[in-house]
Amino acid sequence: MSDFPADPIAVVGGTGPQGRGLAYRLARAGHLVVLGSRDAGRAADAAGQLRTLPGVAAPVDGASNEDAARCAAIVLLAVPYQGHAELVASMADVLAGKLIISCVNPLGFDKGGPYGLSVAAGSAAEEAAGLVPSAAVVGAFHHLAAPLLLDPEADLSHEDVLVCGDDAEAKARVLALAADVTGGRAVDAGRLRLAAQLEPLTAVLISVNKRYRTRSGVALTGLSTAAAKEEVA
Amino acid sequence: MSDFPADPIAVVGGTGPQGRGLAYRLARAGHLVVLGSRDAGRAADAAGQLRTLPGVAAPVDGASNEDAARCAAIVLLAVPYQGHAELVASMADVLAGKLIISCVNPLGFDKGGPYGLSVAAGSAAEEAAGLVPSAAVVGAFHHLAAPLLLDPEADLSHEDVLVCGDDAEAKARVLALAADVTGGRAVDAGRLRLAAQLEPLTAVLISVNKRYRTRSGVALTGLSTAAAKEEVA
Repeated sequence: MSDFPADPIAVVGGTGPQGRGLAYRLARAGHLVVLGSRDAGRAADAAGQLRTLPGVAAPVDGASNEDAARCAAIVLLAVPYQGHAELVASMADVLAGKLIISCVNPLGFDKGGPYGLSVAAGSAAEEAAGLVPSAAVVGAFHHLAAPLLLDPEADLSHEDVLVCGDDAEAKARVLALAADVTGGRAVDAGRLRLAAQLEPLTAVLISVNKRYRTRSGVALTGLSTAAAKEEVA
Repeated sequence: MSDFPADPIAVVGGTGPQGRGLAYRLARAGHLVVLGSRDAGRAADAAGQLRTLPGVAAPVDGASNEDAARCAAIVLLAVPYQGHAELVASMADVLAGKLIISCVNPLGFDKGGPYGLSVAAGSAAEEAAGLVPSAAVVGAFHHLAAPLLLDPEADLSHEDVLVCGDDAEAKARVLALAADVTGGRAVDAGRLRLAAQLEPLTAVLISVNKRYRTRSGVALTGLSTAAAKEEVA
């Protein structure tokens, strides 16, 4: 694990609901978090709000996306897919050599509802890997509903976080972070290219949410808690 | 429901593990099933074997794929994706106007493991819909492990069957069949195009199976049993 020191964790796109939600859960687990935004002032405001939420056990700061990423060894990309490639390319120098966690979901919406966008690289995670070849990119956190992440009362321990990546050390690190975020299982889903399946699955969850008026997430059957934790250890 | 009489249900590709497994569970729930195969003799043999399994409550017959489909109002496609388009095109006349259930998973395998294949139509289910425009195509049963389907002792009631389709009546029919197959929840996942997400998700499950030495399946969080059943009713 020595290649990737624990803290701080930068959240690029940290003022969006998914970024704020993940930052909150990470801070509650004791991780130092720096929210990034195109507008450093908005990031500082969002960080100030997060600090008021129950259980925040570590400092939460705000900065520009670039400054946030510069000070962190682990960078969580929590940005909309629209503009993703341009943003990652513009930050390639500060992202070089780092552990990038992508929770980006390339989704489209039309009158038929949500659907998965076609991505030339296969997935947003692979797109980021292509733009920053020296980084270790791991896909995770695609399926956790932001309102639940941000709800201090919501128990997420029944949600599975499916984690994919090609760098074993980086993936092990993210599996541990995922268990911190939910208090539940983190599942090694396999190679990074399976992000092409994990990312657009969110379209199914959004469709189900609308139909059943809920906040759905994913759990796998056939997998004991012990099995998943053993894999992390 | 009057457009789609209940029985028999034809299983095209009914001698493969997925087809036999689903046929077994359907027969155990009292549905008359006709297994189809390119080789009618092999289909008859497989049907004979299924009839010996515990709890089979209805006749199980075997026939050529064409003859099986001809006698049924509901046709379950349980064939490998390789050759899928050719098979469906060759049967377009007998499939016309019927309820087609697709559990076809377009997957590739290489040294990196399983991955989702790129399908020009979006998904195998949409490919079938394009080839038989008068049929009502519904996607379902992508994620149930065949060895569990075939194991008389295996309880599948904790597995969610995610069902997608654009014909509400046909989808309601398949949601009811799915509940028969597992004894558990059937979830309306939305439009047929979401088969593009449901089908290749199986690559993730196979990857997890290998890593954790299990037979994984899918369950959604945030959805009560009551909510899912209410939708079916």
